[in-house]
Amino acid sequence: MELLKERIRRDGTVKGSDVLKVDSFLNHQMDVALFEEIGKEFLRRFDGCGVNKILTIEASGIGIACVTAQFFHCPAVFAKKSQTKNIAGQVYTTKVESFTHGRVYDVIVSAKFLGPGDKVLIIDDFLANGAALEGLIDLVNQSGAELAGAGVVIEKAFQPGGDRLRARGIRVESLARVKAMSEENGVEFVD
Amino acid sequence: MELLKERIRRDGTVKGSDVLKVDSFLNHQMDVALFEEIGKEFLRRFDGCGVNKILTIEASGIGIACVTAQFFHCPAVFAKKSQTKNIAGQVYTTKVESFTHGRVYDVIVSAKFLGPGDKVLIIDDFLANGAALEGLIDLVNQSGAELAGAGVVIEKAFQPGGDRLRARGIRVESLARVKAMSEENGVEFVD
Repeated sequence: MELLKERIRRDGTVKGSDVLKVDSFLNHQMDVALFEEIGKEFLRRFDGCGVNKILTIEASGIGIACVTAQFFHCPAVFAKKSQTKNIAGQVYTTKVESFTHGRVYDVIVSAKFLGPGDKVLIIDDFLANGAALEGLIDLVNQSGAELAGAGVVIEKAFQPGGDRLRARGIRVESLARVKAMSEENGVEFVD
Repeated sequence: MELLKERIRRDGTVKGSDVLKVDSFLNHQMDVALFEEIGKEFLRRFDGCGVNKILTIEASGIGIACVTAQFFHCPAVFAKKSQTKNIAGQVYTTKVESFTHGRVYDVIVSAKFLGPGDKVLIIDDFLANGAALEGLIDLVNQSGAELAGAGVVIEKAFQPGGDRLRARGIRVESLARVKAMSEENGVEFVD
């Protein structure tokens, strides 16, 4: 998605060898006009797949998931990172290691909102080692829902997550695939 | 907002005397078509106020904030509940007590995304004791931005937060104000 790559080149900042800061438009301040273009592109790629539910994980996936859900005319569900008082009843649960936060989260989704008959598109802002997506796929499998695939805004293609998921037969659509990045040379994309 | 009140009556569930579960459409599964109507209503109420930024707090405010920002044609920013490795540079920080989670969070926003010249509309899903909104207002004040007001989807009007904020001169617009609720009688709204 050229518009997105241009935006990453212009406003993204590389820190060290593996942090790409896109907090001015993607995951802290959110450019919702860009999100609309992202949602349209996910629809173009997954149109006709029968998607009736968008699944993401809090927090930075939520905005993109909601705007994408507008194009699919379906609800979005976000998996929660810890048990709260306000989730009662049956839940599906999995564990996800966050490398950003340096900890392991219990991630849960209520069984009321995911189950047989659902065709699920997973949406997230980043794909690097794949831990978050693998956790969400585990939740979909536990629920008996069918997985249409995963839509990712930025994939760090030099990390193993995307390849590992594709090797499992999962359809992963990334709108910008970063081949390499450095503070000196910025971001280089996979063609 | 009658559509919202009808939805709360139909799909909301009261637990005990103070928990209103609306997780099937507002804060776990998200009905983005309803969010569009909510965004339109916030625009109707705050139109002409010069709002150029929407501010919310993770996680359940994010979806509503993003869809609302589409109607205001401005970015949305979400305040984060704890310091992560990926926030560097100057931040504004405040403390917010979550009664749902039984703990106090450090809430931060990057100084890059809030400052003088911004006219901020704060958006959140719930207003009860007002702790989250007071924290967000504190962040706005620290930044030197101007506050247009706060737009809340559901206000528990039997708790003190809304009255306390209005007594400070802050414009609070709540789309559904709950006067009383119980497991036996359901939800009663302020007229």
